[in-house]
Amino acid sequence: MNLNQCPVLVDHNTHIAVRELDLPIQIEKVALRTPDSPIHQINPLGRVPALQLDDGTLITENSAILPYLADQVPGTPLFAAAGTTERAQIQSWLGYLSAEIHTATFRPLNRPERYSAAETAHPGIRAQAQVQILKAFEHIEQHLTDRQWLVGERYTLADAYLGVFSNWLLRLGGPFNELHAIGRLREQWRERPAVQQALKAEGLL
Amino acid sequence: MNLNQCPVLVDHNTHIAVRELDLPIQIEKVALRTPDSPIHQINPLGRVPALQLDDGTLITENSAILPYLADQVPGTPLFAAAGTTERAQIQSWLGYLSAEIHTATFRPLNRPERYSAAETAHPGIRAQAQVQILKAFEHIEQHLTDRQWLVGERYTLADAYLGVFSNWLLRLGGPFNELHAIGRLREQWRERPAVQQALKAEGLL
Repeated sequence: MNLNQCPVLVDHNTHIAVRELDLPIQIEKVALRTPDSPIHQINPLGRVPALQLDDGTLITENSAILPYLADQVPGTPLFAAAGTTERAQIQSWLGYLSAEIHTATFRPLNRPERYSAAETAHPGIRAQAQVQILKAFEHIEQHLTDRQWLVGERYTLADAYLGVFSNWLLRLGGPFNELHAIGRLREQWRERPAVQQALKAEGLL
Repeated sequence: MNLNQCPVLVDHNTHIAVRELDLPIQIEKVALRTPDSPIHQINPLGRVPALQLDDGTLITENSAILPYLADQVPGTPLFAAAGTTERAQIQSWLGYLSAEIHTATFRPLNRPERYSAAETAHPGIRAQAQVQILKAFEHIEQHLTDRQWLVGERYTLADAYLGVFSNWLLRLGGPFNELHAIGRLREQWRERPAVQQALKAEGLL
């Protein structure tokens, strides 16, 4: 794989992982929600992240892209070998964060129109989304109470992915400020050079 | 790993994969939605699938459990080696099916109360869920138009997982009957001995 030849349209999550893994990828900003966005040539779903390999194969979903990129750097502490318990745990958290956090709870908060055509229903959908986001994060909070990182004793892909969502909680405030273990993880995540570089490159720092 | 010593609380998807992989797991029916269900001792989220390893480690999410189980059978045609394009493609479809099909679209259809506390909003949420389910499956339909299986030339974990959801479409009818490529995959999936055994053991055949 020559990543410099691959069109890689990343989201914030993938961008951080690419920098953590020190992969030779050039980052370029592109328009996303316009009809002439390059995303439409790469992903018929019209969204990021999307990784197009040299042979044209399309890989989507952070729960697949992050493991694939990490597997290009054998032995990286961010991941673990196939068949091991650690890899299963990391993949389990990637799946939980993708399905339960990103899709199941933040999407109805940000895109209530995908959950009801009736605009009058949207405030109720947004309110219930906050209830569900809190429940989904309380499960993580409980897991992190006596742990520094999600899996084992080190920062992995799972923490890199959680860091992004933990950052989103700052906008919500209220009961989300009481998730202290997640808050500790966020602080450690934000101090990592790869995260600082990604945030700076995206104009978020 | 001695799977016979692990409490494995499976859902229908995992059950089929366990039989496809011919893993030494004993299947026992247990109550799920009761306060004394054994699931609460294994998964604080109170849901399946949940795989508890010999050392007590909990693995959840089909997008993690199916790859972990397949990695216990090195060389299985259901999966592929770490770092390969095929593995990334299979993991990509597992992620899509988990996040976009199972969670993002079937959940609001089946559990509208998780999307709004207002009961009056539920019919609108269910109606929009059908719109979104159709969109999510049309992406798969398009991919399968000139292919027999989701990845490569053979049946993989991704098809085993899709088979279950393709079966759910039979209940929806209407425009879902027009997804002919998915219908072909469903017929081939249903003929597999592992699927037949799982359906019979669950009293669904």
